Amino acid sequence: MKFRAEIDIMPLEALLDPQGKAVSNNMKNIGLAEISNVRIGKHITLALEAADKATAEAKVKEACEKLLANQIMEYFSFKVEEA
Amino acid sequence: MKFRAEIDIMPLEALLDPQGKAVSNNMKNIGLAEISNVRIGKHITLALEAADKATAEAKVKEACEKLLANQIMEYFSFKVEEA
Repeated sequence: MKFRAEIDIMPLEALLDPQGKAVSNNMKNIGLAEISNVRIGKHITLALEAADKATAEAKVKEACEKLLANQIMEYFSFKVEEA
Repeated sequence: MKFRAEIDIMPLEALLDPQGKAVSNNMKNIGLAEISNVRIGKHITLALEAADKATAEAKVKEACEKLLANQIMEYFSFKVEEA
């Protein structure tokens, strides 16, 4: 079966996010002072083949842990759907 | 009212995504050859103040168009929830 995964990888809440901070500070310059606390991470989509949804989820988790996320600085969440 | 937005900004399907391609090619080296078609974009979270949900959505759309996304190369989607 074919599955499709959507993964979000974000900087840990405890860590500064300088890129997000810079964007937050610039919102007022474009007239959007209502916006605050911008945090910027990665969004990753991928396709995979697996026997069932549980296997697909295990594979995606493994990919996040081994390659996609740096768990010292980031946390990840994902959802897997049949394609 | 306070709202929270989650924004995904992805490279357009028609464009090459060299970073995603590199990750796809490396999946087999970590024993995950089932994974293909990796595409990497940005995930952005932010907080905002607005009178109602429709206004909040309009502000987030404006932020995406003016600052966060480069619509020549990227498309965005978002959802806004009451915080």
